Amino acid sequence: MGEKNRQVLLAERPKGMPDDSTFKFVETDVPEPKEGQVLVRALYLSVDPYMRGRMSDAKSYAEPFQVGKALMGGVVGKVVKSNDSNFAEGDYVTGMLKWADYTAINGKHLQKIDPNAAPISTALYVTGMPGLTAYFGLLDIGQPKEGETVVVSGAAGAVGMIVGQIAKLKGSRVVGIAGSDEKIAYLKEELGFDEVINYKTTENIRNDIKAACPQGVDVYFDNVGGEISDAVLSLLNFHARVALCGQIAHYNATKIEKGPRILPYLLTRSVLLKGYIVSDYEDQFRDGVKQLSQWLKEGKITYKETITEGLENAPDAFLGLFRGDNLGKQLVKVADE
Amino acid sequence: MGEKNRQVLLAERPKGMPDDSTFKFVETDVPEPKEGQVLVRALYLSVDPYMRGRMSDAKSYAEPFQVGKALMGGVVGKVVKSNDSNFAEGDYVTGMLKWADYTAINGKHLQKIDPNAAPISTALYVTGMPGLTAYFGLLDIGQPKEGETVVVSGAAGAVGMIVGQIAKLKGSRVVGIAGSDEKIAYLKEELGFDEVINYKTTENIRNDIKAACPQGVDVYFDNVGGEISDAVLSLLNFHARVALCGQIAHYNATKIEKGPRILPYLLTRSVLLKGYIVSDYEDQFRDGVKQLSQWLKEGKITYKETITEGLENAPDAFLGLFRGDNLGKQLVKVADE
Repeated sequence: MGEKNRQVLLAERPKGMPDDSTFKFVETDVPEPKEGQVLVRALYLSVDPYMRGRMSDAKSYAEPFQVGKALMGGVVGKVVKSNDSNFAEGDYVTGMLKWADYTAINGKHLQKIDPNAAPISTALYVTGMPGLTAYFGLLDIGQPKEGETVVVSGAAGAVGMIVGQIAKLKGSRVVGIAGSDEKIAYLKEELGFDEVINYKTTENIRNDIKAACPQGVDVYFDNVGGEISDAVLSLLNFHARVALCGQIAHYNATKIEKGPRILPYLLTRSVLLKGYIVSDYEDQFRDGVKQLSQWLKEGKITYKETITEGLENAPDAFLGLFRGDNLGKQLVKVADE
Repeated sequence: MGEKNRQVLLAERPKGMPDDSTFKFVETDVPEPKEGQVLVRALYLSVDPYMRGRMSDAKSYAEPFQVGKALMGGVVGKVVKSNDSNFAEGDYVTGMLKWADYTAINGKHLQKIDPNAAPISTALYVTGMPGLTAYFGLLDIGQPKEGETVVVSGAAGAVGMIVGQIAKLKGSRVVGIAGSDEKIAYLKEELGFDEVINYKTTENIRNDIKAACPQGVDVYFDNVGGEISDAVLSLLNFHARVALCGQIAHYNATKIEKGPRILPYLLTRSVLLKGYIVSDYEDQFRDGVKQLSQWLKEGKITYKETITEGLENAPDAFLGLFRGDNLGKQLVKVADE
């Protein structure tokens, strides 16, 4: 192949908000798969807030990215050459691959995708990591019950909009928090959220959440942190559950920020709060995928993707997560199917 | 009976730290027990930090005390007259009774105590509410394992010193935080805590906890809140558990205090944090009392009481909790057995 392989490297660890100096593009030859390896042509990259954590070397749940090496993330691609008898040219696959046109990787790190079951990009969303994150965090930690009130922050993000729909399926009242009128209209009109609050235009976020939750808050699914969480945590009911999934308000913080102390609230309401990462539920992934696929097929769950065209625009798509640009799942389309 | 009945009333709801104006003493006639009621002579009153919460009318897990009415708390006493066939004059009993010489109460709210099994005051401590609080919070939420590191704040208080001993029985390394050299000596020499840090004299609490926990913190049992908790929460290991039992640093706060934001820590370490009240475990009390009684009898758990003499000194004993006066369980002795 005379074709080149473009890759997006971590140029340097960002201090605060990442910018152009965080990323570096290089072009190399397309790698030759070794024995047992599969060469994958990337079609879609998943762009996720948790990747900001891996750009730092602070202690966290995932290994830091290495400076000077390619960024890695969820990718859906097509097999172009295989030295693993489980994969054939033309197979659609997903796995944690490089932000690059091509990755050569051992076949055991790949899963096949059935392109007839659902659009292949959903392997990076509803039936992939964000869908499973919503599913296990809400159902295992949040445990929403019929008639309870569930509040979701980052409600128009990839995880948040799945959380809200699952909570509706469980018979809960669902209140979302999002950042634009377009997002709010989608969540209310298309997904059936009971109330959605615009945190960017509200005069008093706590008053608005309180008004939207006349029975208090039984479950809080938090993608955000910061002042939105301050407000929700002060409105929790006795025996409320908090699924701590993300803290996007803090991922670019350069020092530990201050806010109202929350332990007294959590104590006096006997609250359960749990931070988690989707891999905590690895041994139940098969069940989760099965249920999510079924809901998807039955039309009980729907979704929205924001697709940025071109690997060269992947850094900006990532930065857009922190600007709140995306409605639903942010993807980068690297090549045509 | 010509004898009078002294009672301690809530005179007014305290703003901030309670003081003499919070309490009012009255003398009434000794009540006559009605049909089904038992008249109990108080011997020991339990003096507990959570009572501060009930002096406020803020939303909490327990009903507020009423202004102008007697304070209520755990009491061990002796039956002096009974209109309930389950109780006879001379029986030792415990229950939630008035801070008074005498309470007339329906027999269903009382439990009998066997004075031959253990000193009767232990019904207010090791085999009573504080012991059960330690037992269920540590074992159900904290789940300490052999070789793990357990940190206990308020370690020389009633609950804390039981927590540390149970954690040692489970094979954990136990690090306490306490406020005087006398307390530290007791915890290390008598109870076998591995390390105890004096938060009042430390130059840097976080550095001292870090040095005492070279493997990080797996379980944090929090009685205190504030800067001590800030330090411990920043040192948690992946999948750490936090049993949130008390927040004595904040019980007298007149506004919501600020501190470092903790949700990012709890997220990136996949931490489980649970606020609780002992009554959450009501249906398992029998098992807890059985185990605690056995450990007490076998000498596997020991305890310390700080006994203030005289009902008239009950308010000061209560205020002493916030000064850290007590080593172990604070009691008030109202009358001789």
